Amino acid sequence: MSYKQILYNTPPTDAINPSLTTTDGTFRLSTIPKPSNVPADKLLVRVHYLSLDPAMRQWLTAKRSYIAPVELGAIMRGQSIAQIITVGSELSSKFKSGDWVVAYSGWTEYALLSAKEVEPFSVPAGGRPTDAMSVLGMTGLTAYFGMTEVGKTKVGDTVVVSGAAGATGSVAGQIARIQGAKRVIGLAGSKDKCEFLVKELGFDAAVNYKDADWKKQLKEATPEYIDVFFDNTGGEILDACLARANRDARFVICGAISQYNTSKPKGPASFMTVISQRVTMKGFIVFDYAKQYASAVQELGSWLAQGKLKRKEHIVPGGIEGAPQALVDLYKGVNTGKMMVEVAPVSEALPSKSKL
Amino acid sequence: MSYKQILYNTPPTDAINPSLTTTDGTFRLSTIPKPSNVPADKLLVRVHYLSLDPAMRQWLTAKRSYIAPVELGAIMRGQSIAQIITVGSELSSKFKSGDWVVAYSGWTEYALLSAKEVEPFSVPAGGRPTDAMSVLGMTGLTAYFGMTEVGKTKVGDTVVVSGAAGATGSVAGQIARIQGAKRVIGLAGSKDKCEFLVKELGFDAAVNYKDADWKKQLKEATPEYIDVFFDNTGGEILDACLARANRDARFVICGAISQYNTSKPKGPASFMTVISQRVTMKGFIVFDYAKQYASAVQELGSWLAQGKLKRKEHIVPGGIEGAPQALVDLYKGVNTGKMMVEVAPVSEALPSKSKL
Repeated sequence: MSYKQILYNTPPTDAINPSLTTTDGTFRLSTIPKPSNVPADKLLVRVHYLSLDPAMRQWLTAKRSYIAPVELGAIMRGQSIAQIITVGSELSSKFKSGDWVVAYSGWTEYALLSAKEVEPFSVPAGGRPTDAMSVLGMTGLTAYFGMTEVGKTKVGDTVVVSGAAGATGSVAGQIARIQGAKRVIGLAGSKDKCEFLVKELGFDAAVNYKDADWKKQLKEATPEYIDVFFDNTGGEILDACLARANRDARFVICGAISQYNTSKPKGPASFMTVISQRVTMKGFIVFDYAKQYASAVQELGSWLAQGKLKRKEHIVPGGIEGAPQALVDLYKGVNTGKMMVEVAPVSEALPSKSKL
Repeated sequence: MSYKQILYNTPPTDAINPSLTTTDGTFRLSTIPKPSNVPADKLLVRVHYLSLDPAMRQWLTAKRSYIAPVELGAIMRGQSIAQIITVGSELSSKFKSGDWVVAYSGWTEYALLSAKEVEPFSVPAGGRPTDAMSVLGMTGLTAYFGMTEVGKTKVGDTVVVSGAAGATGSVAGQIARIQGAKRVIGLAGSKDKCEFLVKELGFDAAVNYKDADWKKQLKEATPEYIDVFFDNTGGEILDACLARANRDARFVICGAISQYNTSKPKGPASFMTVISQRVTMKGFIVFDYAKQYASAVQELGSWLAQGKLKRKEHIVPGGIEGAPQALVDLYKGVNTGKMMVEVAPVSEALPSKSKL
């Protein structure tokens, strides 16, 4: 028996080329034999869902960053939701076949991983395995720490979130509301997304940045200026929000998806406002808050259970071969909520202690 | 008898037009009669030195900022070093003829001011009246609070200052050294300025940003990256320093002189580093620290007296008519140290209690 992996093939100059069959494709498909036995210190896992994250484009660029770039020829890096199939003899006290884990597997159908490369979780009542990778996982935690620790959102603030219909943005806006923000405004790239933000997530307003008059709409939506801006997009949107910054505003620089697929990024031209309004812009990486993950997941979980926090998933079916195109689509903004590729449906999972 | 004032004539689109005789000049000259008597609640002051500050260009633009723009037809705004000539009867308990003051007079040879518009000072031993407008005044205080409160410079840091030979930058770099920075590097626009920074002010290195290979020089001068960047210039220099930011770097956004004289400012393109290195960029205005001015001036004064802090002045002689051209020259970077226009030399001052 064999299984499929997707390898990093060749560095993109600007946009990712999703073709798996041409030599200039960013990725290529590889088929390898399934291991016949599992080493004593390893776990054999089956991947069910791949996480697609805006940061991935950065991992393909050999620049100084918070993480080393993916090596050419290596499996494309990424988190997944996986299930343990076979447990190596040395690990049998810690893991059981059927356990769900968040795995640092990369883009593969199966993987032999060490104990350090997986994080077990149990699916809470009313929850789904994929929650561990979205609202209760990295994107939820990113929203949580960005809004609380970096943005220091407080009662009465006007909070604007860009990429607001995305995995992190949608959670960030809801957290702002929970923290007592006076107004929560989302920026998103379609009418449907804007409706989702206002009607389903309870944002006070949403602005479609593809509308010709979006800057005017943003101005009207922020009559008392912006106290906290949670930025996932960078570029023109960051610029327009800087122009609306209130005195002592906090700009949480979480991502800059508009700038990832270009070799000629643009910075915020309204930079003068940083001085005149005493703006603090702070970049952060969720990893820095690892010691507080457990308590944050608990709080996010309780909000989810209480209905204060709503999750949204965008699952791309059809197997692992769809991952490169799905990543391209992520940068095009086709998703509302957390984007994942279904490598194998939950219905194919082994029976486990976790509730599905 | 009459005296001269310089009024704001017409808004510049990009660069200031220093002509005082053409209709499209940014400023115009006005001559008005000297007041024959001084109202009871006023002081008649004679201006000796006008302060020239990079922020002035911003005051000529009708944008939301930390201060309202100068109105067309009004006296050009600015601080000065002035001497009190005549004291209105109600103010005689507080002021004496011959007292030196920092005056909010604007560009004028004489002014009738209220008590709120002047700040008396006495010239310390070894000091000069102009110190109150430079190293012990706004530019020194800006350097002080930017480096201590905003940049939070600490022992062992690598500190880079842009506009390092200017009034604020030259003090900022010296304060970094006093605070125990491991390396202090200045960016300036000429070989002479760079020599001044290293030889006279004790910077560890200086980079002339007009050299073709200045980015390479900057890289070599910051082998352990940049912990604190005190920015007076913005634009390309901010960009290059972002690319050299260390983990958790603090970027003190004090000014952006490279961007003031253009209607199409550019932001930092290396903005991704803000995320990957968790950079904090913070804009500030010295006014916010007004409650701490007195203690800061005391500390700066003691450093000056101990020789730990050196001052540098660039005085433009020839009277008030030279102010517009001097302002243009400030943006060209002709000055090393604090740039002032001599409206009347100290030798013409009245005798006073202050030591000269």
